[in-house]
Amino acid sequence: MLLKIQHDLFVTRLINNQTSNSAQRHKPSYRNYSMSTIKPQIPKGFRDFLPPQKALRQQVIQTIKNTFEVFGFEPLGTPSLEYASILEGKYGEEGDKLIYKFDDRGGRKVALRYDLTIPLARVIAMHPTIPKPFKCYHIDPVWRADKPQRGRFREFWQCDADIVGSDSMLAEAEIITTIYHILKALNFNQFTIRINNRKILNGMAQSLGIEEATIPALLRIIDKLEQKGIEGVKTELNAKGFKKESINTLLELFNTTAFKSLDFIDLKRKFSNSPLLTEGITELECIFSSLTALGVDAQYYSFDLSLARGLDYYTGPIFETTLEEPKIGSITGGGRYDNLIGLFSNTNIPATGSSFGLERIVTVMEELKLAPLPSTITEVMVTIFTPELQEDALRLTAQLRSHGIKTEIYFKHAKMKKQLTYASNKGVPLVAIIGPDEQKNSTVILRNMVKGTQEAVAANELSSVIKRELLEL
Amino acid sequence: MLLKIQHDLFVTRLINNQTSNSAQRHKPSYRNYSMSTIKPQIPKGFRDFLPPQKALRQQVIQTIKNTFEVFGFEPLGTPSLEYASILEGKYGEEGDKLIYKFDDRGGRKVALRYDLTIPLARVIAMHPTIPKPFKCYHIDPVWRADKPQRGRFREFWQCDADIVGSDSMLAEAEIITTIYHILKALNFNQFTIRINNRKILNGMAQSLGIEEATIPALLRIIDKLEQKGIEGVKTELNAKGFKKESINTLLELFNTTAFKSLDFIDLKRKFSNSPLLTEGITELECIFSSLTALGVDAQYYSFDLSLARGLDYYTGPIFETTLEEPKIGSITGGGRYDNLIGLFSNTNIPATGSSFGLERIVTVMEELKLAPLPSTITEVMVTIFTPELQEDALRLTAQLRSHGIKTEIYFKHAKMKKQLTYASNKGVPLVAIIGPDEQKNSTVILRNMVKGTQEAVAANELSSVIKRELLEL
Repeated sequence: MLLKIQHDLFVTRLINNQTSNSAQRHKPSYRNYSMSTIKPQIPKGFRDFLPPQKALRQQVIQTIKNTFEVFGFEPLGTPSLEYASILEGKYGEEGDKLIYKFDDRGGRKVALRYDLTIPLARVIAMHPTIPKPFKCYHIDPVWRADKPQRGRFREFWQCDADIVGSDSMLAEAEIITTIYHILKALNFNQFTIRINNRKILNGMAQSLGIEEATIPALLRIIDKLEQKGIEGVKTELNAKGFKKESINTLLELFNTTAFKSLDFIDLKRKFSNSPLLTEGITELECIFSSLTALGVDAQYYSFDLSLARGLDYYTGPIFETTLEEPKIGSITGGGRYDNLIGLFSNTNIPATGSSFGLERIVTVMEELKLAPLPSTITEVMVTIFTPELQEDALRLTAQLRSHGIKTEIYFKHAKMKKQLTYASNKGVPLVAIIGPDEQKNSTVILRNMVKGTQEAVAANELSSVIKRELLEL
Repeated sequence: MLLKIQHDLFVTRLINNQTSNSAQRHKPSYRNYSMSTIKPQIPKGFRDFLPPQKALRQQVIQTIKNTFEVFGFEPLGTPSLEYASILEGKYGEEGDKLIYKFDDRGGRKVALRYDLTIPLARVIAMHPTIPKPFKCYHIDPVWRADKPQRGRFREFWQCDADIVGSDSMLAEAEIITTIYHILKALNFNQFTIRINNRKILNGMAQSLGIEEATIPALLRIIDKLEQKGIEGVKTELNAKGFKKESINTLLELFNTTAFKSLDFIDLKRKFSNSPLLTEGITELECIFSSLTALGVDAQYYSFDLSLARGLDYYTGPIFETTLEEPKIGSITGGGRYDNLIGLFSNTNIPATGSSFGLERIVTVMEELKLAPLPSTITEVMVTIFTPELQEDALRLTAQLRSHGIKTEIYFKHAKMKKQLTYASNKGVPLVAIIGPDEQKNSTVILRNMVKGTQEAVAANELSSVIKRELLEL
């Protein structure tokens, strides 16, 4: 509150100073605007990111981007607005309702990007000469008119990596290796990349006599196993009219405490009549052996028969990363979608990829304190000791910046205490002061705001002393 | 065309391979979608960025971001959607028509971000406790339903730097110094940061008896001087009903070939009756002396009385950067807007800032070849010599990546010629090959695709040899 009052006093003083001279003659130029104040607010589910939050997000994105590039993924960008017809019908009934749609001024039906996969499929169809396999990454906001709640927003960021034009299981191995390295680079240590194959799930369902056309609906419900439990899923499946016997046999599998450790041999034995399931298993075996060669530590991934993934368009291996703590749902999710691009191009092109959910990753990093939230990125503030010494302060500022040091200058002469208080409130770690003595001796006082110490440093050594002090902080 | 045919054959082959085994049994799960192909297209004025374009944009943004941070600006983010009432009435009549507005599902009137200044003003009003002066930067897309034409898009990126809460002219000097350093860092060499002050223009208009309320409209028209010429502007001003005599005297000033070199002394003499003009000149003198102390080369900026800037909300110094070649309009623009934040908060807070137009900057960089457009960011491709040697290739890939080398692996065993052709088409500069001999001798063949040479390198020296070769490219 004190801060608020100080702030208001400060602002009042500024305005008085500033307008005393000319306000009467120079009427403000916004006079055409409504004179009543407009309430400053933003729509629910949307967010401002003040510097500490924005800096952390940028840092996480930079780490993800660097890893994508080292893994040979190239950057891609798509527009925020797509024709609505491009997006409609791709995200299931519930998803479709969440698309932000509107008519533009020309009456065209347009929609805000809902995810990064459909736009990628559209790009590939529009640019058939892109050399394939095409490895690309895409980091951008998406919009969903969802009910806002803790951790769920209407505007949120996705980071996708995809490999288009290869049916090789090495592509899956590359995607999973990338996930592993990104999470390691972000200091995550207790995560599991759960891996399954739609071919295994479809093969099981077929063997149990479940009608082909109803399998996508079945998988969407099974996808909620973790959330709703076996009984919840059973109730929902019964309500949707699935045959009791088939459902019971299927859920029996998931219900045994041993099911997590069901291995490929068990599965092959139980469903020896399904070539589709066998094919799915062969694919996973191929992925697992490549992961070993690529140096991915086996404790971070596992086969998980209960993983289904909600979207209809997956056709092969699927994968999702969950954390032991906190329980926040998956932080990555993806899989193979060999038939999606064909929706736009008459020619199917195989593809696989994964999405990283930036919001959850950032939330977890804050909760687990995996990255400090910096209060400012400024490293040094230069003070103005007296109006006569302003030029020296400006020259020093320019010099520090030329050495790449993040430097700001206090904007006017004020009592030294006031200038130091500003630096301290903002969390700037170092302050540089040139007084009359320092000017004479070509020195600078360097004050360490964290330790509360200060020393005189020769002007020509200041940059290196600052860099050393910053490393020690 | 050949490429297109090869590509189509390639895709057909992939699909045949891939679906031969299971397509009949495993009906594609997108069967609920419309079966007719959706034409892949994007709305006019919106763009996809394929990897070379996106990589160049990222590189430019990174340079701008780095310079902002060295100058002590902190990152800020705002949502893409604002309440329409926040944006309406701020951009003049013409601007207002270009706002993308629509009703969301709850019937709230929302609008896509039109620029980055109004959202900043809203943020400041909503968070009154942010310590001031607040130096921040904001890099994000904005949307305008403008007529698309060469170089003008409906979705385009702005990069803004602002200083909020200081009426010191040092703030202007900081903004202008930042512009100078960013353009230098982007290799621009022939640019002029033109500087004027709204107080000077307003003072002149007042002295000439032009009615106070019409001055903003006058300035909007004068802003088109470069585009329409003196006669064009005169016609437009006459049509709007400005008094002939005042207009003639005013335009006389701009019409003399000497007006560009009109100095402050001339101006003060001609308009000695205007304290507002005198105040404006004092402010510019203060800015110019700080620019000198901050080390900005004087050949890159100048006072320009004809600079008006189109927006109504400027209240003090204004600045804009133009290039000698190509003639593309301004690439940066900004100024002081001391009354804007008051629209949202009942308390005016002084502020100044500048916007960088990413689209024009990137266009010019491409035209002047200031930055090479990389065909790929991948540095090395690892081949798979035989299926038996796949594991060795994967291990090598992991090893190169662990040294930060941007590496991809060819996704399956194929004839070496085919693998090399892929690398060559994509523009990958280096290719690593492990054949049976190399496996035996712990060596790797490193092929330089640019020079067409190759050599055997000891496996444990490969990373350093690659780094050396990349530097020489």
